[in-house]
Amino acid sequence: MRRTRRHRVERLSVDGTSRPRSDVLAGEEPMELRVDGSAWTVTMRTPGDDFDLALGFLVSEGVVWDAEQVAAVGYGPGVNPDGTRSYNVVDVHLSPGVAPPGTSHERHVYTSSACGICGTSSIDAVTRASRFPVADDVRVPLAELLAMTDRLRTEQRLFAETGGVHAAGLFAVDDDGRAELLCLREDVGRHNAVDKVVGWALRERGLPLRRCVLQVSGRASFELVQKAHMAGIAVLSAVSAPSAMSVELAAGVGMTLVGFSRGDSANVYAGRERILP
Amino acid sequence: MRRTRRHRVERLSVDGTSRPRSDVLAGEEPMELRVDGSAWTVTMRTPGDDFDLALGFLVSEGVVWDAEQVAAVGYGPGVNPDGTRSYNVVDVHLSPGVAPPGTSHERHVYTSSACGICGTSSIDAVTRASRFPVADDVRVPLAELLAMTDRLRTEQRLFAETGGVHAAGLFAVDDDGRAELLCLREDVGRHNAVDKVVGWALRERGLPLRRCVLQVSGRASFELVQKAHMAGIAVLSAVSAPSAMSVELAAGVGMTLVGFSRGDSANVYAGRERILP
Repeated sequence: MRRTRRHRVERLSVDGTSRPRSDVLAGEEPMELRVDGSAWTVTMRTPGDDFDLALGFLVSEGVVWDAEQVAAVGYGPGVNPDGTRSYNVVDVHLSPGVAPPGTSHERHVYTSSACGICGTSSIDAVTRASRFPVADDVRVPLAELLAMTDRLRTEQRLFAETGGVHAAGLFAVDDDGRAELLCLREDVGRHNAVDKVVGWALRERGLPLRRCVLQVSGRASFELVQKAHMAGIAVLSAVSAPSAMSVELAAGVGMTLVGFSRGDSANVYAGRERILP
Repeated sequence: MRRTRRHRVERLSVDGTSRPRSDVLAGEEPMELRVDGSAWTVTMRTPGDDFDLALGFLVSEGVVWDAEQVAAVGYGPGVNPDGTRSYNVVDVHLSPGVAPPGTSHERHVYTSSACGICGTSSIDAVTRASRFPVADDVRVPLAELLAMTDRLRTEQRLFAETGGVHAAGLFAVDDDGRAELLCLREDVGRHNAVDKVVGWALRERGLPLRRCVLQVSGRASFELVQKAHMAGIAVLSAVSAPSAMSVELAAGVGMTLVGFSRGDSANVYAGRERILP
């Protein structure tokens, strides 16, 4: 079980006591992503759902947006020092005619802007890369939205064990405004948790993710808004604060961005019309 | 002031009220780092202390470890759509004879291992890249260590305003075990906050950072342990959980790693001998 690992730890207290205990740590290992045989990126991640992580990342970067564009996904070579297979290289082969990612090894759509590096050019780059304009009329009652934070926490098995991982949960909202949890993923990296959800959706032929809310356990960074948008998700809700640029991006593309969604209230930073009282 | 930005937000409550308010958001903009004229990496960061961020990142990646190895640091070209300078490109020129970073655009020392991608090879890569073996006999009383968490929180001005940033604080510990805060940095990216502290130390001719504790506001990932080790810091303390691989790396290089350091107790995952009762 590489998702967690037990470790002996000493718990020291100011009263002078020192108690040895066994602690459960979140797994973290490097994963190399290869596309059509070429190494593209390496990320530290919690092992598990590795193929979804690879596919979701390709969606986030605008390389694929339909399951038909992926010919095959599998583990590549790579062994541990003891000779056992490491399962830390994922090989994605694109279907004929699908353009592989550019030569830049950076995992940032926003660097592809020609007009320089600034917030506006980053937002333009995401808008250009996106295959799914925000045309989603999903409506979410506030009470259902707030309940997602609690639901995420309740279902976070890895967090309950380790206290050290982020989570992303995808909720479908029906015509009556009721939300259903479709997919929840946890990872030491906040971006990875979202990529794993998006990769799952690609495999399930679920893109674009209309009538869905993506709920995340921490803050809402620019890249999380980017990832949600690239998957066609219209509502991103975070337990903690958004950054200035995540609000700009959400407003720029017409998404709904919610922050500090916990207890009995939430802040709506963009796209107020999708949240019902 | 690009470190924060005001934004109109609506606070919705389950009692049906909707109150418009002005919220302060943490600034987040892309920064391109160029080394000797070549674009090397782009990172999203909170503007401010950009030169330190660039220098600290170069230390983390093993490119430089002494201020003399840097010939010049300055802002490169780059304009906003309105024609004003964007201050989002940082140019670092290395001194003659200093080898520039390799052709990989990834910001990961651990990818340089020849024997494949796994936890052990990642740890070996950091050990090989490090210029400062852990030879630090710093000793920290538990009470002083726990006080660092509170001190960090008290001094986190940006967090107090936005609720949305990470912090890293560098504390010097004297012979009597008393700790003094030398440098505190905040950023939307946890890694950036540490790089800014390390870059400051490089400029101040303070590397290796003997007799110091690096206190971070969140979790302790592999990369944070790597960054601390590359700067010669022997004690890394986190408010939240470490990952399995961060514990392995700390134990492997002989560092002290503390987690869940808050209230009246802390967990010691490696290097117990440096924490005094």
